[in-house]
This record gives sequence, structure tokens and C-alpha cells, in this order.
Amino acid sequence: MSLFFSVIPVAEAIRILTSAAAPGGTEEIPLGEGLHRVLSADVPSDTDIPGFTRSVVDGYGVRAADTTGAGDAVPSMLRWMGTVPMGGVPDRAVAPGECLYVPTGAVLPDGADAVVMVEHTEQARDLVLIRRPVAKGENVLARGEDYPRGGMVLPKGRRLRPQDLGVLAAAGRSRILVFRQPRVGIISTGNELVPVTAFPSASQVRDVNSSLCAGFLQEHGCVPRCFGIVKDEQGLLRAALDRALFECDAVLVSGGSSKDARDHCASAIAERGEVLAHGIALQPGKPTILGQVQGKPVIGLPGHPASAYIVLRALVRPLIGVMAGGLPPERRVGAHLAENIPSPKGREDWVRVRLEGDLARPVFGKSGLLNTLAASDGVVVVPAEREGMEAGEVVEVILW
Amino acid sequence: MSLFFSVIPVAEAIRILTSAAAPGGTEEIPLGEGLHRVLSADVPSDTDIPGFTRSVVDGYGVRAADTTGAGDAVPSMLRWMGTVPMGGVPDRAVAPGECLYVPTGAVLPDGADAVVMVEHTEQARDLVLIRRPVAKGENVLARGEDYPRGGMVLPKGRRLRPQDLGVLAAAGRSRILVFRQPRVGIISTGNELVPVTAFPSASQVRDVNSSLCAGFLQEHGCVPRCFGIVKDEQGLLRAALDRALFECDAVLVSGGSSKDARDHCASAIAERGEVLAHGIALQPGKPTILGQVQGKPVIGLPGHPASAYIVLRALVRPLIGVMAGGLPPERRVGAHLAENIPSPKGREDWVRVRLEGDLARPVFGKSGLLNTLAASDGVVVVPAEREGMEAGEVVEVILW
Repeated sequence: MSLFFSVIPVAEAIRILTSAAAPGGTEEIPLGEGLHRVLSADVPSDTDIPGFTRSVVDGYGVRAADTTGAGDAVPSMLRWMGTVPMGGVPDRAVAPGECLYVPTGAVLPDGADAVVMVEHTEQARDLVLIRRPVAKGENVLARGEDYPRGGMVLPKGRRLRPQDLGVLAAAGRSRILVFRQPRVGIISTGNELVPVTAFPSASQVRDVNSSLCAGFLQEHGCVPRCFGIVKDEQGLLRAALDRALFECDAVLVSGGSSKDARDHCASAIAERGEVLAHGIALQPGKPTILGQVQGKPVIGLPGHPASAYIVLRALVRPLIGVMAGGLPPERRVGAHLAENIPSPKGREDWVRVRLEGDLARPVFGKSGLLNTLAASDGVVVVPAEREGMEAGEVVEVILW
Repeated sequence: MSLFFSVIPVAEAIRILTSAAAPGGTEEIPLGEGLHRVLSADVPSDTDIPGFTRSVVDGYGVRAADTTGAGDAVPSMLRWMGTVPMGGVPDRAVAPGECLYVPTGAVLPDGADAVVMVEHTEQARDLVLIRRPVAKGENVLARGEDYPRGGMVLPKGRRLRPQDLGVLAAAGRSRILVFRQPRVGIISTGNELVPVTAFPSASQVRDVNSSLCAGFLQEHGCVPRCFGIVKDEQGLLRAALDRALFECDAVLVSGGSSKDARDHCASAIAERGEVLAHGIALQPGKPTILGQVQGKPVIGLPGHPASAYIVLRALVRPLIGVMAGGLPPERRVGAHLAENIPSPKGREDWVRVRLEGDLARPVFGKSGLLNTLAASDGVVVVPAEREGMEAGEVVEVILW
């Protein structure tokens, strides 16, 4: 006897969810707010980077040919004609037999085609001894060598790292076009739930999943919006769902761990839109509901926090990837399994593990327990086609 | 001939920097703002979690002894005495031969000591057939089993993940005590620098490092404060440094790629406080200045963005670890080196690499080039005691 009409594979659930989703438009933001945002268009540079040929060392701008054969024993001798000021342009060119002092980052004078590092020179009045030869272009960054004007500096879809912000600064982008952050509503359902601020009576529990979901959404580049705790009553849930759908791009309905509560959630979705799936071949996370209302994804999460969190990682993460245009990278590490993991065929098992050096030790425990989430470092995924994994096996741990 | 009096090893630089630093106090914030913040004190629970013994499945609350020997052929037969409402307390206890229906998450009635999943039962009017035996405690979460009242749920120093926010919610912590986020000032120096919004003339470059540093600081849990671009003039730099020190817990002075500029920076630090080191056995990043003014770290970064970024990762990151009380985890991945990396002994080399499947290919290039940073996936660190690394060698890549 099954509580579910049908249970669909995880890959199918992801396909259903992501095919119903799309990035939610773009917006222009200041560069300083761009960290971890995702570019919605290729970015070209408005100028050559660098905009002029410059020295990358402190030294003397020379004609490379003038240094041929230079060495400690027989240095080349050049006439010093002055210094290029930082931020200024040289007041003269370098003729054969001449040199100009060029600090790091300053303009290479006309005529010069290389820079000899000051460490390899000796200056006495207006004569400079060159003790090493340089090749044409040595210690020089040519105009446009980093990025040419009009060339793409970063592509659409790039999730911006600190160094990318530097590149965008160089390209003159004080404002950037990025994908809008998906707004995702969170509804917690359950007669037994009370807010974090309340002290629960003998039959109540505090609302854990709102905080869990909000943190997950923030970490994945979304803007969470909490719609509070809703009693297990069809009318109330409908009203909350309508409010959330009005303001958000997607909705998570969390709680509802009992069959009755799940049925309420599924009915509310079905009334307004469509239930796409009810039951996933995922452990924990089987009683998950995938729906769509007004073209927006609505997901009924299991009530147990550990189950809910696995569903967020396994199913909601790829959905956000589409909606946000990009995701924070996952951290993964290889390890040897410390104990056998039993798992029936046909079901994908997400087993929490604790890392002990090179060992990944499964943290078995009831999915109602929060401490299995808090005490674990990540998960090992047992694919549906496998019947468990054996101690000693090399596994990949997805770190939290 | 060296431009530096002395060059100190990277480990020594980190020791100097971190021993001069301390966490900058604590603050109380709402739980909803806690993601990735660091707890400044152990957190105990104000209640047993869960606060009552509850069912983790939909099923019948029974006395386990009443199900001994139950099976498909000879089921146990129990009298159904009603249903426990979600969020309510049972109106009666379970006597021998009786059962109550208990939805997932509801209170286990007195007398009952286990729950039989509804899948393994059949109800006809007020009789319930039990087709599987259960052990005492089966499908039940005992009061306080997750965390006992007064027990620590999360330790001081914990950088909060989404599931930790859930745990704190369960423990009744709507406000939490965390370390203050370090405020770090950024001063960009250089006559050649113009703001991102300006179009650079033939001898000017846009200020890249302010954006780069700000992004890095944000990513590492700090609050960046930009103090703009300062010309290479002792008085101006002094004034900017004073302003930044007044408002911030640490200051990065970026730019100053030429020896003159570095000397300005070192003098400004020495006038106000102390230069702790000038020159690090790190490539790129050698011309870094470590200082301390009014007990606050002041770091002179190299002007080349790629060098500056390596110094941020290699030296400033551990400093922030102390000041912020914690750091985002580093992502690391093993790979085979695609090409030899030459490196002189006595110097730690941070070589940018691009990942090509299992291969880490060094991205060699002048440190003035931004595209080496943008095009790389991370770095391989060649320790000071090694003379390079060989193609094929297994290396650890620190991912950006």
C-alpha cells in the first residue's frame, strides 16, 4: 500500500521544475553591489586596457637594440634624459643611445620598446650603465594587451567574483546589467507551529523551516519573503498562497508533514494551478509536491527540517539555477566511506556524513532530528540504480 | 642589489599580522540576518527539542508489547480510540489493546510507546489490524532527544549555515550574539588613477583595486569602506589614513606600484605607527607592506591587481579570520599539473591555473594583466622549500 499515486525519479523532478522556470528579468545595479550577482549580458570594454603602453617595473625605458650584449663585465652605456612622471606623459621620445626613467605603471616613451629593471642598472649623473640585455617588449604591457577596446571582458551568465569586479571597473562599468534576484515566498503550515519568539506549549513546536528556507534562499542568491505561519485550513492556505504568488516568483510551502497537511497543500495548488508531481524517489524527501500556479513554481516541502533541507539542495537548487541565471559553486571532496550505506534500488538516497580525516562517516538518524543536519559536514548521494554503498568505497561528498 | 631591506617568509608575515589582530567585539542581531555570521558565544536551548514525545510518521500510537508477533497472516487487533489533533494534546491515554491515530508530528499519547506506520495497518470502523510489530520507541522522537533543555546547540565560533539558522530557531533564539563584522578601509593611491566613472586619458588608468578589494572583503564577511583615490603625496596619504583609521578596524592601502609610491606608503605608516615588514617572500606580492597604527593593521598592497589579489588571499584572509572570528570555507580540488612550474627556492609562488578536466594548466602572464585573474579558476601554491613543480604532479588547487 502506497500513500502516493506515483513516485517520480529525481532527474525527472528536476526536469519538470526547471522546464517550468525562466530567469526573472534583468536590472541595472551599481558595480559595488555586484558581488555574486550574475551578468545578464556580455560586457565589452569601452577602452583599450591598458589605454597606453606602460612599464610593469621600475626601470629605464630603452631601445632594446641598445642593450644587445650588455653584461656585468661590459655594460651598455646610455644617456639619461629624464623621468616619466606617474600619471603624466613623457615630454620627449627616446632616441638611440638614450633612456628615460620609467616608474612601474608609467607611460613608455615613444622610441623606447622595453624597460630594463633598475636592479640591473647603475646611474651616475646622466649616464646609466645597463648590465643585462632586454628583448623588445620586455617588462612592458602593450596598449590593449589585457583587453582590446570593444572586446568582451566577461560573458553573460558570469557569477561575479571579486576579481571580476576589478575587471568591470577597468572596463568602465560603474553600473552593470544583472539578472534580477528571484523573490521566493515561504509559507509555513501546521497547527502545531509557533513563531521563534514564542515559548512552545506541550504540543507545539517552533517554526524551524522558515529560518532554514530563508537562509538557503539567501545563500543561493534569492530574496526570501516569509509569509508567516498558516494553520492547516484550506481557506487560510489558499489566501496565503495568493498573497505569496502576488509578490514572489516562486513559493515554498513548508511544513505539512502529515498526509492530511500534504493533501491540503496539494489541493490548494490544484485549485489555483497544477500539481506536476506528488512524491519523489528521494530519501529523505519523498512526500514533496511540485506544482505550478500562474506560471510560477510552487513546491510543497516535507515538514521534517532535515528532509526539507535535502529537497532544497536536491530539487530547489537547480530550479534557482535557472531562475537566478547562476548558482554559488558547490564544494565537493573525495573521501572513503567509513560504513556501509544500505539503500533500496530505485530511490536516490542523500545520506548525511561527517568527515573524519579521509573518512566520510554516515550520520544515520531520524529525519526529524535537527542535530543530524547540524552535526554533518555534507552528503553522499547514492544513485537510484545502486543498492547501497560499501565501507571503503571512494565517494564524493557534497559539502554544506 | 635589492629594493628591500629584508624579505620575510609568508608564514612569518601571517604570524605578524594575526598576532596584531583580535575580534572586534560582538553585537546582537535578528536571527534572519544571521546567515554566514559567526557566533560569539555558545548557544544553549531554552527548551527540550522536541518539547514533547512525538510521532515521526502517520500511524497508530500503540503499546509495542501489543504488536509482538503481528504479521500479514496473523495481525494484531487493536481498538481505535480516536485521533490526536495536530497542535493539540491527546484527550486520553492508550490502554492495553487500544490505539490512537497520530499524524506525523503530533503528540504521542500517554501509555503508547511506539507508532505503527499507517501503511502497515488496516482500519475497519473502530478496529485496527496491525500487520507488523514495532519496538519500543519506534517511529517516535522522544522529548529532548534532539537537544535537551540547556544543552549547547551550537558552539562559539560557528559560521552559520542555513541549517544552523533552523537549529537556532528551534532553540528560541530570535536574536543572536555574533562577532561584529570588521570594517576595513580601502585607500587607492596613484597619480595615474581615475575613478571607474571617468574615461582615462592617455596616461591614466581606472581604479581597479578599490572594486577588487571591496568585493574580496564582502566575500570574507567584512564591511568595506572606500576612501577614494589619493594622489602620491605624503600629506594627502596621511590625511586619508587618519580618516580611514578613525572609522575602520583595519586599512588596505592599494596602488603604489612604483618604489616611490611604496616608500610614501611605508613612511606614512611609520610616521603614525610601525612598519612591521616591508617585502614578503611571495610571488606575486613581494612589495607588500605590513604595518600597525593605533593597534590596527595597515597593509600596503602591490599596485598590480593580480598581485594585490594574491596578497589578499594569502595574507589578508588569515588576518580577517582572526578579526571576524571565522571565514568562508575554501574550495579545494585535486588535479594533475599540466606543465612544469619553475620557482626559485625560498619564495612561495602562487600560480594561477585553469582547470581542464583533471588537469591544472598554469596561466602564466604578467601580473599587470587582469585577464590572468579573470581566466583562471584558482591557484596552485608552490611552497618556499620547493624548486618548482613538475608536469603530471598531483597538486591541490585552491579555487577562487
